[in-house]
Parts: sequence; C-alpha cells; structure tokens
Amino acid sequence: MTKHTPAASQKTDAFVERLELPPFQQGSLTGLDFAVKDLIDIGGHTTGCGNPDWRDSHGPAAANAVCVDQLLSAGATLKGKTVTDELAFSLLGENYFYGTPLNAKAPGRIPGGSSSGSASAVAQGLVDFALGTDTGGSVRVPASNCGIWGLRPSHGFISVAGVNPLAPTFDTVGVFARSADVLAQVAAVMLACEASSASEVDRLVLIDEAWQLVDRSALPALRAVVESCADQLCGGRAEIVEISMREIDGANAEQLENWLLTYNTIQRAEIWSCLGLWVETYRPQLGPAIAMSFQLARDVKRDVVIKFIEQREAYCRSLNSFLSPRDLIVIPTAPCIAPLKGSIGNNREQGDYFPRALSLTSIAGIARLPQISMPLAEVDGCPIGLSLLAARGQDAFLLTVARQLDKARVVTYGATTP
Amino acid sequence: MTKHTPAASQKTDAFVERLELPPFQQGSLTGLDFAVKDLIDIGGHTTGCGNPDWRDSHGPAAANAVCVDQLLSAGATLKGKTVTDELAFSLLGENYFYGTPLNAKAPGRIPGGSSSGSASAVAQGLVDFALGTDTGGSVRVPASNCGIWGLRPSHGFISVAGVNPLAPTFDTVGVFARSADVLAQVAAVMLACEASSASEVDRLVLIDEAWQLVDRSALPALRAVVESCADQLCGGRAEIVEISMREIDGANAEQLENWLLTYNTIQRAEIWSCLGLWVETYRPQLGPAIAMSFQLARDVKRDVVIKFIEQREAYCRSLNSFLSPRDLIVIPTAPCIAPLKGSIGNNREQGDYFPRALSLTSIAGIARLPQISMPLAEVDGCPIGLSLLAARGQDAFLLTVARQLDKARVVTYGATTP
Repeated sequence: MTKHTPAASQKTDAFVERLELPPFQQGSLTGLDFAVKDLIDIGGHTTGCGNPDWRDSHGPAAANAVCVDQLLSAGATLKGKTVTDELAFSLLGENYFYGTPLNAKAPGRIPGGSSSGSASAVAQGLVDFALGTDTGGSVRVPASNCGIWGLRPSHGFISVAGVNPLAPTFDTVGVFARSADVLAQVAAVMLACEASSASEVDRLVLIDEAWQLVDRSALPALRAVVESCADQLCGGRAEIVEISMREIDGANAEQLENWLLTYNTIQRAEIWSCLGLWVETYRPQLGPAIAMSFQLARDVKRDVVIKFIEQREAYCRSLNSFLSPRDLIVIPTAPCIAPLKGSIGNNREQGDYFPRALSLTSIAGIARLPQISMPLAEVDGCPIGLSLLAARGQDAFLLTVARQLDKARVVTYGATTP
Repeated sequence: MTKHTPAASQKTDAFVERLELPPFQQGSLTGLDFAVKDLIDIGGHTTGCGNPDWRDSHGPAAANAVCVDQLLSAGATLKGKTVTDELAFSLLGENYFYGTPLNAKAPGRIPGGSSSGSASAVAQGLVDFALGTDTGGSVRVPASNCGIWGLRPSHGFISVAGVNPLAPTFDTVGVFARSADVLAQVAAVMLACEASSASEVDRLVLIDEAWQLVDRSALPALRAVVESCADQLCGGRAEIVEISMREIDGANAEQLENWLLTYNTIQRAEIWSCLGLWVETYRPQLGPAIAMSFQLARDVKRDVVIKFIEQREAYCRSLNSFLSPRDLIVIPTAPCIAPLKGSIGNNREQGDYFPRALSLTSIAGIARLPQISMPLAEVDGCPIGLSLLAARGQDAFLLTVARQLDKARVVTYGATTP
C-alpha cells in the first residue's frame, strides 16, 4: 500500500478536481455554476472522500448523485470536486493529505469543515454556489467561518443517494451561496419546495444556553444583527422570546451538555456502523486527528446508545411541538470566528472548540430542523454567522425570510450579492 | 471469480445463518428473540445482502447496525440472519442463490420479498419478531403474503446506520411480528416513541384507486374487515371517507399510475447511484430477474428525475396536509394473495403484479407515512393484508390502533398471538 505524504503547509486549493459538466437542459439555474464536495458522486469520476486510500480502494462512480442530476437538470453547470475533511468527519477544514482551503475573508484562519473546499470556492467567487454535506455542522460552520450563506435542510428531504454516508439519521446535503437569493433558488430545486409567500414571523426564539456558548467578544455584533433582523422581520409585531432550553426539553442540564452528549454518542455509533468495516478491513492511512476521531467512534459503548436515541427523540418531539410553523429560533452558528490554522489540537476531546460548536449545531441535528447560517456579522474583521432555524419541513418559509433579510441589507459585514 | 450455483428448487430455509447473541441487559423485550434480514449488519459477521459475490467481496461488519444494538439493549436475543432478495431489490422472495423461504400459511406460494426470510421465520414461529427493510414494500408485502403483522415506520426515524442502502429517500427498517402487541413493543424501542394513549380515530380514508387495484375475489373479505374495524374503532362516530386520490393530489391520472411512475423513476435512479458502482466495477453474478432490474435502474434517463422529485414532493405535501393526526388511510396491502412460486416472470416490466403492488406501496413511500399491514383477511385459504397508514410521525397512534384491533379480534383469519 502506497504511503501517502501530508499536504504541503501552504496548500490552500479549494478544488481536488476541476471539470466542466454542462447542464442537461435550460432551467431555473441557467447561468449559474457550482462545485460539489468530494463526498458526492460525479459519474465516471472516483469519489475520494478526502482520503487517498479511500480514493485508491474505490472505482469510479457509475452515476451522479441524484442531487447533482437535479442541479444539472435545472440548468446549472458543474465545475469540479472540492476538498473535504476525511470521510466528512471534522469541523475544521484542515485535511492532512489535501491541505486547508483558503478562507478568503480571514486568511490565516481555517475555512471550517468538513465541506471546506465548497465553502472556500464560493467565498472566493470561483463558483456561484456549491454543495456540501452537513451531519454535525459541516455546512453551517464553514459558512460562518467564510462569511457566506449556508443551508442545512430539514433531514430526509434532499436525496443522499450517491453521497457517502457518515451518520445517516443526521446526514444532509446542504448548499453554500454568496446571496440568499441564489441559496433559495438552489434549495427550491433540490427540495422541490413551493415558493413560500409567507414571511410573517410569529416569534423569534433566542435559546439562552446557545447564546452562553459564544465568545463574549462576538456578542455585541451578533446581538446587534438580531435586533436589526427583528426590526426588519417583525416591525415590532412579532414576539421576541428569550428562553432556556430547559423550559422546552424539560431536562435539567446546563449549557446544552445533554444535547451534545446525545449527539456525540449517536453520531459516533452510526459512524462506526457505516465506516467501521472499511477502517478495520482496509486499515487505511488516516490523518492523525481523524484517526483519533475514529478511535472515539470505535470506543462507543454500544449498550448505552439506546438511552441516547430515546433522549434524542424526546428532544426532537419537544422542540418540534414548541415551534409553530411561523417561529424561528435565532442562535449563533458557531461559538467564535474561525480559529487560527493549526490552533485546534488533534484530540477533539481536549479543548472547548468542538464541544461548544457541536452543542450549537446539535440543535438542528437532533431535532431534524432546517437551519440557515447568515453572513451578517463580523468580529475583529472576521466573519461569524447568525443562524435561523425553522420548524421541521418549513424550509421554504426559512428561505423566504433569509431572502428578505438579505434584500433589506441587515448586514454589518459585506457578504451579499456581488 | 467463483461461479455460484442456483439454489435447489426445494430450498426453503428462512435463515442464512443461525447464531445466538444474548441481550446486553434486561429490558422491555426480555424473553423475546428475533432475527434480522441479511442486509442489516451483525458485528463480526459478513452481511451478504442475498448475493454470494457481495458476501465474498466484503469483510465482516465492524459493529452491529444501530437498530440491532437498540434491540439487544432492550433485552431481546438475536437468533440469526435471514434470507433476503438480492440487494433487497424485489418483492417476491425467490432468491436465485438462496432459495424461496417457506410461506407456512400458503406453501407453494411465495413468501414475498425482499425481507422473505424474516417474514418466513416469524410466520413459522421460529422467532418472536424479525427485522426487515422496506423501500417499496419489502416488509409490507411479505407480511401480507405470510399472514403476519408488518410495520413500515415513518421515513427517517429508525437509524439505517449499518443497513445496506437501496434507495435512501425510501429506505426504512421495518418489523414483523405475530401479534400487534409484540409489533408495538418492538417499534416503541426502535422509534423511541412515547406510548400513545389516543386511539380515537377521526376518519378512515379509503382511496378509491387503491381499492380498484385489488383482485375482485379478495374484495369481499377485505371490505368485511374494513367494516369490522370501523365498528370497533369508531363505534359509528368516526367518518368513513371514500375518496379519489385525484381529489387529494389534484392530479388527473387513473389508477395511481403517476404515483407508480414517480416511485419507480426515483427509486431506480437512487438505486443506481447507490449500487451502480459495485455492479459496474465488480461485475457480480446476479440472478436473472435482479440482473434485469439493475438494467432498468441503469437505464433511467437522469435528466427526467428532477420532474419526478418535484412530483413526489408535491404528492407528499398534498397527502400530509390532507391527513389530520387522527386520520387513517385504509387500503389493501397487496393486490392479491401471494402468487404461486415461479409464476411471476423475470421481467418486472411485463405482467401486472409489480405495477399493481408498487402502486399500493408507493403511497406510504412517496408520502413518507408509517403503514401497518394487518393479517386480518384470507382468500382461498391464503392470507392477504389490510393496511392502515397514518400521518407522518404518527407511528405511536398507528400502533395503538393496531393493538386495539388485534385485541378485539377483528379477524377473519387466524393470525393473532399464539
């Protein structure tokens, strides 16, 4: 087996492969071009999943992933495959073998992952939009870090056929764009949703524990954007609700720690069920951080998983029954601006970046809600995302609201339509 | 590559492998034993997916599928792996390599597939319950054929981690049992749902086009059961609504033909995106019927898929907004009793069995609804299932109703608790 060498430290390419696949026909996306994360099949090309041994142990895809065909059918042009963290199992965007795609708005900082190359390519303007996948934040966090729009849809409504699985009850295909208009156009194709005319918001719900997770230095900018959004959306008519998650989920935990533990345990068990065979049989060379992550997945005690699945479904039910179809949850996408390159260690159990980030992203993951990260704030000259979450299935409403906010330029940081 | 020989014609085993995996601990399923379809991972054993070349080209699973761990954690004992149609891609239960598991209540007839061995084992009383998978009817149709209870849950709520994918936006893990009580107990563990106390039904909705698909000879028995159910459930209070699907979906098609075409097109595109690489790279030996099915999957025109995804989501939205949380749809599970062994040709485009069966099963598949097939009727001494479908996410309510009907012995055919 070939020993693969790590990427040179200056390697910042967003693409692993450039190509030109013309659209099948004209459609609503005619004139737009896009890239897809190298976890999503392009027929005739080998999906590498961010790991050279995966690439070398798999043949070329027989067909495009179904979501790629949807976009080609709607008139978009496919320009290439983008760098992903290995097997999509990270939030950083620092791939041991393929490098760290440029974060154009914050060079020197990580783009975020695992859909690192897709976020990087969109933020650089190399394509109009890009597909990523989002299991535990892999679209939302890079969107926040890179200062672009990112959608994680309601779970189960965009086909993952031809997309390598990570943790199926959390896996989604998501979208990056530089404007909410493009985001909404692309999402309308993929979700086959009817345009929602409704944009009247009943309540903006701020979850206390989520807001406690964000850096204090980021709070003023983010809260200022929340107030602008509230003015714009509600004109004072909608209710702003600040509430503890404990009042929603009936549990007794601080800081979303039960949400985090629930997410981590189920995600790791599912990852080992999906990818353990390949890891154990093929013994691939893995980057040191990903190797440790797989170790955590292997070490999950399988007899405790049932308890967390029960917890997850109870949380999912309580949050979905709390939310009306015209409610929006408002939380920071990530706990801070993009960390400096190389600043997060290989062991994700150490340090607080992963726990804080995953606590925030676990809300939509556990409750199967759609979430949009909006590039509306900055701290120290770097982007940080504000997120809106809607009730399950209310993706069209969520996109309509995002469009309205983008149009109204409720923006403290310049990341709108070029 | 070894050339594999077809199964002897008299091969009727339900199991491909017997084993004894004790529960992790005591729980709500203590004392019950179960088997799982050989598409669902058991750690340390190779998942064969019903095809010898698949078995020989894959290593042993690194872990149990998450759903198997849930059952072991709840106290159940695992007794073995059951025969599946190749890659789960059939409704018949006639596996070229592994034979045709016995249909104990209708010997000489097929058990139905693709979860053939699981249905056969439960109907024979070899285990208390069994897991199958249901993409286009692979639990519901064998339950109907074999005279047992079968659940297809709401899509996306039972983890498919460690279950080989076929068509992910339709794939579910389902359950077979000989009583609604056991079915509900097992489902409560897997879905982590709270017991529903509500069993008051608002409306029983009979879809005209579904009833037109059933053999005329089966109509009297099935309609008699519908009337008994109505008496039992509603005591005359609930509304019985006979309605054309055209009034719900706003479309203009006869006989659910658009539902069928929509289902077939998306399912085949997803199958080719998921399994095409293995078929093209490995060139496995396939049974003649499955080889033709894969040919159909390969031949889907990828630029038409978008239209059917739009159609699917429109149907899904219209049916889910038509259904209140206390409504039930009532349809025949299958168009007829189990066909005689060998009576359906290899080409599923010919003959009317597959189109009629898949038209019926496409309703829950397209709309992501839970469905239970109930063994309450017989025709010519052979079982045929009556199905209840509930609104998306109303699995607990559906199971409560099923339990109530089983308890009341609304039965014209003896298939209740032994």
